[in-house]
Amino acid sequence: MKTQLKEDRVLAGKEAVAELYKTGYFGRPRDGGLELSLVEAAYLQSRGKIDIELEGKLLDFREFFEQASLRQQNFELKYIVYKDLKERGYYVQPSAADFRVYPRGSHPGKSAAKIFVHVLSERQLLSVKLLQESVESAENVHKQFILAVVDEESDLTFYEVKSASPKGEMSEPFPAVKTNATFLEDRVIAWDAEASGTLYARGFYGKMLDSERLQLSLVESLYLFSRGIIIVRDRKGKAFSFDEFVEKASRIEGSFLRKFSAYKALRDSGHVAKTGFKFGTHFRVYRKVESIEKLPHSEYLVNVIPGDHEFRLPVMSGAVRLANSVRKRMIFAVEKGEEVEYLDISRVKM
Amino acid sequence: MKTQLKEDRVLAGKEAVAELYKTGYFGRPRDGGLELSLVEAAYLQSRGKIDIELEGKLLDFREFFEQASLRQQNFELKYIVYKDLKERGYYVQPSAADFRVYPRGSHPGKSAAKIFVHVLSERQLLSVKLLQESVESAENVHKQFILAVVDEESDLTFYEVKSASPKGEMSEPFPAVKTNATFLEDRVIAWDAEASGTLYARGFYGKMLDSERLQLSLVESLYLFSRGIIIVRDRKGKAFSFDEFVEKASRIEGSFLRKFSAYKALRDSGHVAKTGFKFGTHFRVYRKVESIEKLPHSEYLVNVIPGDHEFRLPVMSGAVRLANSVRKRMIFAVEKGEEVEYLDISRVKM
Repeated sequence: MKTQLKEDRVLAGKEAVAELYKTGYFGRPRDGGLELSLVEAAYLQSRGKIDIELEGKLLDFREFFEQASLRQQNFELKYIVYKDLKERGYYVQPSAADFRVYPRGSHPGKSAAKIFVHVLSERQLLSVKLLQESVESAENVHKQFILAVVDEESDLTFYEVKSASPKGEMSEPFPAVKTNATFLEDRVIAWDAEASGTLYARGFYGKMLDSERLQLSLVESLYLFSRGIIIVRDRKGKAFSFDEFVEKASRIEGSFLRKFSAYKALRDSGHVAKTGFKFGTHFRVYRKVESIEKLPHSEYLVNVIPGDHEFRLPVMSGAVRLANSVRKRMIFAVEKGEEVEYLDISRVKM
Repeated sequence: MKTQLKEDRVLAGKEAVAELYKTGYFGRPRDGGLELSLVEAAYLQSRGKIDIELEGKLLDFREFFEQASLRQQNFELKYIVYKDLKERGYYVQPSAADFRVYPRGSHPGKSAAKIFVHVLSERQLLSVKLLQESVESAENVHKQFILAVVDEESDLTFYEVKSASPKGEMSEPFPAVKTNATFLEDRVIAWDAEASGTLYARGFYGKMLDSERLQLSLVESLYLFSRGIIIVRDRKGKAFSFDEFVEKASRIEGSFLRKFSAYKALRDSGHVAKTGFKFGTHFRVYRKVESIEKLPHSEYLVNVIPGDHEFRLPVMSGAVRLANSVRKRMIFAVEKGEEVEYLDISRVKM
């Protein structure tokens, strides 16, 4: 079947409506004929279903591919993803978020599309703001949002991105004690054996330095300080105000306040959050801890990112892979004022 | 036993030489008495072995700890590491690289120290240049070099760092073919079915776009181009020179040349290197591939870093953890001119 390459579309005649659209749901009927996107046309050409002419000259696959690559940004990426989805048996339509994908066994006209697929090269930066907007748009119309990332060797990895509101099951965020602590060089120590033991064994805060003294991280310290549980002094005995603590902690760690917002949100929502250093993330998070001797499996790894963050996709990929390899969910806590919003990103098979 | 805090040392009398040095190898004999470092003194005080006075006043543990923290940078970190090593049964001596550690069952005077331990907070940046120098110094005197990283919750993770010269077992780095390829938007496609098949199935290059065409990554393309295996043209048919290719690839990926140096070194030394995107690294590396259908387990993950790189330790921790969780070695290829030097970093239990 002969078709014509015109700008960034391929136009087919009336017979294509019956042969390609009605049987395979390729293209969109227009003015009595059928309009194909460049990826649809390349796919049909590679399967010998259509011939493509440009100004009267027949294009072979290579010629059409080079033309299409010149006429549409990300053409190669889109072709790789489209072809992969077709070969998995999905019906796929071009859309604003690159592709709409129909549920298995369904097709356009039978039911609505279920998935929005957004195509990216591993080299592209992904703005978390745009990602949040895309996920929200998809969730508003009850669609699943999938990122299809094409790596430099043209391998494909699919990520599902969804909003999350994790809830923990801890009944109290901290035990009712009151004790003194010292801000040393970059950590805080509580000295009283009884209060230290209670904070450690009942509140799951810090780490015992020895049988009597408790070492607290900066976020733990500010959280307990802001709730009146500890009084923090410097090494010469002077008590800190909230602002002085924040200022000193921020000098030690530039993103202290952002990290604190996430820590506070996690503790306030009934979780126990501990450092995720061993996993390269800010926190590992437990929904419920009953005994400090028997720490359960932590459910989430949480990375805190600013609202204007741009993901480098290899970094995101590594974080998700690590979380999944230790059977945890990878959650990004996106700063929004003094609160955070959560994005849950996981690798999925299509 | 009474001791005196003087500047950043604690001084004990003659009896300490017999009681602390000769039985436990604490301190260094000086002028008839014993000189203890601050961490040694804090450890001995916490075990009730010594009393510490400052200008005639007896200090309790908290008072001494606050004093020590004011007098020595990283005191808390060093104390955490020292105490941990002592409790594991090691004899430990202060040294230029923080600590020298004696083999199990040995002690100062019996044999030489076996391990140099360098202490870091997770918040400190680690210069790869200094790291390379430290590892070289240690290896020159046949010592193991260990990083002890204290995270914000005072948990300890030990990393062994060593130089590496990985060797692969591939007999030829590429098959002897010659074919045409097109540089599309950000990848290269070879069009000839036979050459494509040979490069893919015998050289383990690229990924088949379909049964005839081969997609190559930018580093693969330049490697094959520089060896005369492929001729690369733009989408309008103009052939690239080596420099034009490098210029275009570098516009697409800022660190292209650095990555190419490592790719070239790995291929030249008999490895097959493929993208490590799914692991968040530049490459995953096979020592030997016999069949593209049955790719074996890849042995290394390789990240390429500039010579003046500064590691953020949580990022390094995540990379090592991920590599270890999929039973691979984590290797950093450090750019040095047009060559690379390798550092192998792994988590170890002490």
